[in-house]
Amino acid sequence: MTDPFVIIGGDAAGLSAASKHRRENPDREVIVFEKGRWVSYAACGMPYYVKGEVESLMDMLSLTPEKAAERGIDLRREHEVVGVDTDAGSVTVEGPDGRFEQQYGDLLVATGARAVSEPIEGARLEGAFTIHSMDSAAAVRAFLTDPESPEFAEPDVPYVDTDLVERFLAREPPETAAIVGGGYVGVEMAEAFAAHDLDVHLFQRPDQLLEPFGEAVGDEVAETLREEGVNLHLGEEVERLESDGDGAVGTVRSSVGTVDADLVVVGIGVRPNSGLVANTRVELGVSGAIATNRYGETSVEGVYAAGDCAEMRHTVTGSPDWVPLGLTANRAGRAVGQTVAGDPTPVGAISGTAVVKAFELECGRTGLVDHERAREAGFDPVSETVTAGSRSGYYPGAAETTVTLTADRGTGKLLGGTIVGTDRAAIRIDTVATALENGMTVGELERTDLAYAPPFSPVWDPVLVAAKVLNGTLED
Amino acid sequence: MTDPFVIIGGDAAGLSAASKHRRENPDREVIVFEKGRWVSYAACGMPYYVKGEVESLMDMLSLTPEKAAERGIDLRREHEVVGVDTDAGSVTVEGPDGRFEQQYGDLLVATGARAVSEPIEGARLEGAFTIHSMDSAAAVRAFLTDPESPEFAEPDVPYVDTDLVERFLAREPPETAAIVGGGYVGVEMAEAFAAHDLDVHLFQRPDQLLEPFGEAVGDEVAETLREEGVNLHLGEEVERLESDGDGAVGTVRSSVGTVDADLVVVGIGVRPNSGLVANTRVELGVSGAIATNRYGETSVEGVYAAGDCAEMRHTVTGSPDWVPLGLTANRAGRAVGQTVAGDPTPVGAISGTAVVKAFELECGRTGLVDHERAREAGFDPVSETVTAGSRSGYYPGAAETTVTLTADRGTGKLLGGTIVGTDRAAIRIDTVATALENGMTVGELERTDLAYAPPFSPVWDPVLVAAKVLNGTLED
Repeated sequence: MTDPFVIIGGDAAGLSAASKHRRENPDREVIVFEKGRWVSYAACGMPYYVKGEVESLMDMLSLTPEKAAERGIDLRREHEVVGVDTDAGSVTVEGPDGRFEQQYGDLLVATGARAVSEPIEGARLEGAFTIHSMDSAAAVRAFLTDPESPEFAEPDVPYVDTDLVERFLAREPPETAAIVGGGYVGVEMAEAFAAHDLDVHLFQRPDQLLEPFGEAVGDEVAETLREEGVNLHLGEEVERLESDGDGAVGTVRSSVGTVDADLVVVGIGVRPNSGLVANTRVELGVSGAIATNRYGETSVEGVYAAGDCAEMRHTVTGSPDWVPLGLTANRAGRAVGQTVAGDPTPVGAISGTAVVKAFELECGRTGLVDHERAREAGFDPVSETVTAGSRSGYYPGAAETTVTLTADRGTGKLLGGTIVGTDRAAIRIDTVATALENGMTVGELERTDLAYAPPFSPVWDPVLVAAKVLNGTLED
Repeated sequence: MTDPFVIIGGDAAGLSAASKHRRENPDREVIVFEKGRWVSYAACGMPYYVKGEVESLMDMLSLTPEKAAERGIDLRREHEVVGVDTDAGSVTVEGPDGRFEQQYGDLLVATGARAVSEPIEGARLEGAFTIHSMDSAAAVRAFLTDPESPEFAEPDVPYVDTDLVERFLAREPPETAAIVGGGYVGVEMAEAFAAHDLDVHLFQRPDQLLEPFGEAVGDEVAETLREEGVNLHLGEEVERLESDGDGAVGTVRSSVGTVDADLVVVGIGVRPNSGLVANTRVELGVSGAIATNRYGETSVEGVYAAGDCAEMRHTVTGSPDWVPLGLTANRAGRAVGQTVAGDPTPVGAISGTAVVKAFELECGRTGLVDHERAREAGFDPVSETVTAGSRSGYYPGAAETTVTLTADRGTGKLLGGTIVGTDRAAIRIDTVATALENGMTVGELERTDLAYAPPFSPVWDPVLVAAKVLNGTLED
């Protein structure tokens, strides 16, 4: 056939699109080019793999190359797309056998995002990692493993960078770990390293951890991390990582002073991999990610983008936004696969709904939480924070749950919310996310018929308590 | 003052209304007549009190008479309203000092519901109970307590029927308990009695437990109860309870045979206490509960009804319905208190959202689940049931979660859903409840930006998986 559906990138968005398309349209050729060896892996599971709760990297593959082949997907690993020509309808590919051109009928750009380590000098020293690839996760876990007790199986895993893993396996395990950045990766890695009894230092330039989760959550997470023995360096900017002379990292130098560290993880953010189409007619958004319409199509007909490299419409602002998260990639990829198969399917909007575990704390956020961002979007934000029980007060296991809701003063429209607690807290953010999806007002949320039974919720769920209080404030 | 706000009933709806009204309008007199000694108690907590997880009945009071007095509520316990004259604007009250008339400006009927035991003969034998009052809960717990080790404190609790409690405390604890009815009360009491190592028999006339939760949930609950050693008698109708000659219950006679039982709980349903207004101009609905408008007002101006005695509008059908549940009573009572204070506040709609614990199983339901009911409401129901993980498959503790969603074939409108599982399953029903509140279609729910992180949810939350599958079915 001459019009294959070509997909650049073999992770969540790319392979979701490929699988869905093959199911809907089994006759059309689907080619996926993946520059690495790994495909369809759960990046979000890496901290738990490093921690030791997940045994093997292989457990985190949601689709193996073999399964992809069974679905009729022509998956070409170690094939990097180095050029896109939207006028010619072709991509330039570099594979093990050299460079070639591939014509496409439809194209999906699903190139994901990359971890940044700039402007931190020394971030490429041996022993310094970003946790954004399976190989680096394997290397960190190998590093943590005592070379004397090598029940560690990862070198035998296919796809893995065996040299890298064996190099770190051979090294003496670290005693001190430093984490640069207090976002998801930083907080999750702090838990992972603490589980290995390392002396853990976490550096965060702002005064608050998990900034997108707002102050109420950030404060509780900081308190928990301190209780768990993590040394927090808040408001402390890391300037560079330094070697002790052997080429390996040994010291973290910050705006405040220095800390010894045998192992450093840099988790200060990710950027969309949109450079591949930067010089084509495919337009980028202000975020630097690829602009898309409600079907995931770019400014060029027949060229789609999905996942961490693409912008999506924000549920609350209605404007394009870039929030690289797993469900978004899967959902958008799947929708594009279906649309390209002839059944136009919206990719949906994003609210930035996210949950994260910080030791025993469960944190969630959705929508607009930051007042400055809300004002930029034209709202007049008002927030209330409440602490309520997770169960009836008399029922064993009831735990404090702190909910913040934000609304627009004039209209009462709900803009966003956060939650933190130890008992079924995180999953409750889905109620707020569903409310945002429907543009509910706080008053409407307050009257929503949610569940109550002593083991699971007080009569008024913490989310309803927050709605009640915020609605009272709005009415004053 | 001559126009007090008079409230009949001092439980959830009544005292929520009284409290809210006093806050909004501190100058107006609020009189609450409660026929019993107990006020504002958590009926839903009783099974856990009987089980022993809640130490004292006092723990389950959300508002004590002393607190009510502090709020300026004129709460008169042991005052039964025996007549309502809406033309004269007065109620007839029987109190400890005799009968009197009380004028009202506004009236709230919050008389709740009563447990039925008809047509089961012998349900009033000593040792047979309905778990619908604090006194009967206290009596059952006393019965389960070894008279030789009386660390049981309840006789000293104020309000309790001391004679009743002491009578059962003096008896030899039961060895066999029978439960008639497999609804909430039945399932929760089975867990409570099993915790006391009793031989437990549960009789249910239909073939399915927890009927409002549908078959998928009912089947899993039955399996769990059997695994926990509960003897299930499904499809078996109890005809009568019989005494062994001492006036106390000893045998349960069913359509199939007889079972010995020293203790019997009858939990076959509740009925609204609407008889007080049956001969007034206040109209009842088809359910037998009091008809109300969106502000909880009855057909008579200035007369309101809220809680288990009142109908409310159903979110999905838009028609009046009667679903006596705790949040509904609290919310409607509070709204009426605010409305009567001059700030018209909707009581909200009901979806019949409910959750229940059955040993380690968490069950939830909301909206229209039963196809026959859905058809009666004018829909063409289609359901799909899926089983998905509660967390990422590779993350420890991931548990099977079974979700059923029902939608209207023609419009794709979501009608209802159920859920069952062991890991944060129940609370997930709130997502479906919020979707119903907004009249979402299954397609819209499928595209909702819910939370994902390996410890809390797979990439596609079980609710989203169900939406995806059901949407696929609708599109075929």
